[in-house]
Amino acid sequence: MAYLNENYLKLKAGYLFPEIARRVNAFCQAKPDAAKRLIRCGIGDVTEPLPPAVIAALHKAVDEMGQRETFRGYGPEQGYDFLRKAIAENDYRAHNVEIAEDEIFVSDGSKCDCGNILDVLGSRNRIAMMDPVYPVYVDTNVMGGHTGPADDSGAYEGLNYLPCTPANGFVPELPPERADIIYLCYPNNPTGAVVTRDQLTAWVKYALAKESIILFDAAYEAYITDPAIPHSIYEIPGARNCAIEFRSFSKNGGFTGTRCAFTVVPKTLMASTPDGQRTALHGLWHRRMSTKFNGVSYPVQRAAEALYTAEGKAQVKGLIQHYMGNAQVLRKGAKAAGLSVFGGVNAPYIWVQTPGISSWQAFDRILNEANVVITPGSGFGRNGEGFFRISAFNSRANAEEVARRLQSIRW
Amino acid sequence: MAYLNENYLKLKAGYLFPEIARRVNAFCQAKPDAAKRLIRCGIGDVTEPLPPAVIAALHKAVDEMGQRETFRGYGPEQGYDFLRKAIAENDYRAHNVEIAEDEIFVSDGSKCDCGNILDVLGSRNRIAMMDPVYPVYVDTNVMGGHTGPADDSGAYEGLNYLPCTPANGFVPELPPERADIIYLCYPNNPTGAVVTRDQLTAWVKYALAKESIILFDAAYEAYITDPAIPHSIYEIPGARNCAIEFRSFSKNGGFTGTRCAFTVVPKTLMASTPDGQRTALHGLWHRRMSTKFNGVSYPVQRAAEALYTAEGKAQVKGLIQHYMGNAQVLRKGAKAAGLSVFGGVNAPYIWVQTPGISSWQAFDRILNEANVVITPGSGFGRNGEGFFRISAFNSRANAEEVARRLQSIRW
Repeated sequence: MAYLNENYLKLKAGYLFPEIARRVNAFCQAKPDAAKRLIRCGIGDVTEPLPPAVIAALHKAVDEMGQRETFRGYGPEQGYDFLRKAIAENDYRAHNVEIAEDEIFVSDGSKCDCGNILDVLGSRNRIAMMDPVYPVYVDTNVMGGHTGPADDSGAYEGLNYLPCTPANGFVPELPPERADIIYLCYPNNPTGAVVTRDQLTAWVKYALAKESIILFDAAYEAYITDPAIPHSIYEIPGARNCAIEFRSFSKNGGFTGTRCAFTVVPKTLMASTPDGQRTALHGLWHRRMSTKFNGVSYPVQRAAEALYTAEGKAQVKGLIQHYMGNAQVLRKGAKAAGLSVFGGVNAPYIWVQTPGISSWQAFDRILNEANVVITPGSGFGRNGEGFFRISAFNSRANAEEVARRLQSIRW
Repeated sequence: MAYLNENYLKLKAGYLFPEIARRVNAFCQAKPDAAKRLIRCGIGDVTEPLPPAVIAALHKAVDEMGQRETFRGYGPEQGYDFLRKAIAENDYRAHNVEIAEDEIFVSDGSKCDCGNILDVLGSRNRIAMMDPVYPVYVDTNVMGGHTGPADDSGAYEGLNYLPCTPANGFVPELPPERADIIYLCYPNNPTGAVVTRDQLTAWVKYALAKESIILFDAAYEAYITDPAIPHSIYEIPGARNCAIEFRSFSKNGGFTGTRCAFTVVPKTLMASTPDGQRTALHGLWHRRMSTKFNGVSYPVQRAAEALYTAEGKAQVKGLIQHYMGNAQVLRKGAKAAGLSVFGGVNAPYIWVQTPGISSWQAFDRILNEANVVITPGSGFGRNGEGFFRISAFNSRANAEEVARRLQSIRW
């Protein structure tokens, strides 16, 4: 008799975004006229087309695939050298951060990598994560059997949730309990908060002292506008020995539908066997990728490479400025509506405190009264309750319209 | 202290293909002149360019991604409807096999899916697999902790290896022991064998009686030339209740570097919790893909769709004929060299018995004397010892040259 992975049965109802889709569909069917003016600021999905440098690189690579002489079959599972080199050079060495090319693993998405990284980690680890948090971190740990069941609030037994609140600027305190694996995401999804160099240094010191590993999700680093804020955890001394970093082309180059990202696993990063033998994780992740992955589509890797050309960089800058312009508009609008507003300065998310109602009540009210889709904060964890997230990924006209409509709601 | 997944430490030296690459590199450095006439028939990687219909579809989709009106961000994690529909219609309904569109999950590779499927299966399963076998099936089970250590022959404790030999036509006998999960791959990599309708029916009956699940890898189905051989396990009555099927665009459309595949999980396929509660695996796999995957690149899905147009089908047919023409040439050449030859009729692989030497001895001899790279059979398992695999993925000129050189070796 075949057995299933019973840990899946612990997972709560649905992943957050399908539930939002369900409510929006019901709304659209009930109120077809209002549905016509619907503006979506829910999912953090880019709206602007791929930059011209990327389009040109894609066409060129596609033509190569159509000729026998330039056709490419299986590529290296860890990514082509041309892309790993561009990444190492531009994202790290240019900022005086020493990351070798073969410490960079190109993949089809940070979501995949954040989940897959658990493949190489043991089952005894005590897992700590920010709350509110990107649901994928939690759900993949549930699937992997690292938790007990969820309680009524949706919190899983055995996970160490680190509260992120206005009081701590959405940067958690160092936990007194043992934490072997720590998920940190900055610029943060969903709160839009950033971590200062001092705060991140404290976390790195903690991890080095405890021999913990920080899983650092920097998918939104391109949105940092404050020059004092670190873009990579490897800017902090010692991080090479305690951190894995996830980066993505989804939110800078607009690759959400094109699919490319990368993960950095330094060769100096060690973890232990149950009997205390220390081994580099780099070899395990390399083996994982060789065995369970076949590399990213060749034209897509050429597209990602194009983001590092002078032309590509300028075009990415334009995209970021566009979305961050939206963020400013939305921040202002929400403030003018009398709401407490966080984020939106170094991140494309605005995190708004509801005026004393629940997150889902706010979701329904904004949907019904303003015909705008936001993301209820409680979908990201217990400490997200009483907040909602507005995404700045939109046209400027839509951002301005949403800013106006937020002020028209009877809060 | 962070712990690693200690199961990785049980894995034997290297994945087969890196070891081949190592020996070939050493040969090229030692004998640079001979290296110039090297012909690679090792890895099963296509050599011909993408079909024109695919190139046209890629260019069109890339242009869509460059315009705001037609740009696509996140797509459905399970694949776009247009592709799932084309698959269901052409690969199943056209052959009177009832597979619903939402039972098809589009992915970036069968290698990934074959490994990832273990995510939704439990740890108590007794695993049976063909021997010789695609190493990914074995290694992913080792990584998942479903085995003990390997013995000197490379066989892992706890795995049930089903011998595939000339005596049984490379189709294993039904195992007397309990087998909850059974890996079958037909047309077979590496032996090039196929399974008849009667043989596959016996396996389906066995699985239904034991409530086992067959993981059926049909990545090479496009190479079947004999009309009596089933292309899909779902052609066998009852298979919807006991089988998952893996299909790929790598070997028909030449997508090894473009990356697209799909997996079929019928909604009627059940597995058990440890306490005997039966649950459909479809929901678990859907959840896995939603949480740990973000869909295949949009232009790539359009490229795969183009394989199902009249033009695309004709072009794929041309590719298959080309490679199968090579297979015929290679079969003849190996036979003329006095070797016992299997496969190569309904599959792009020729499986050759060595004249009493080991697989790696044959590898070294063919490399040194004929300057041809093949794959040593022992790399696929104990029962592959004494065989080697020749891949038909090449130009016709190379296939003919390899056929000649095989006859020049002092066997």
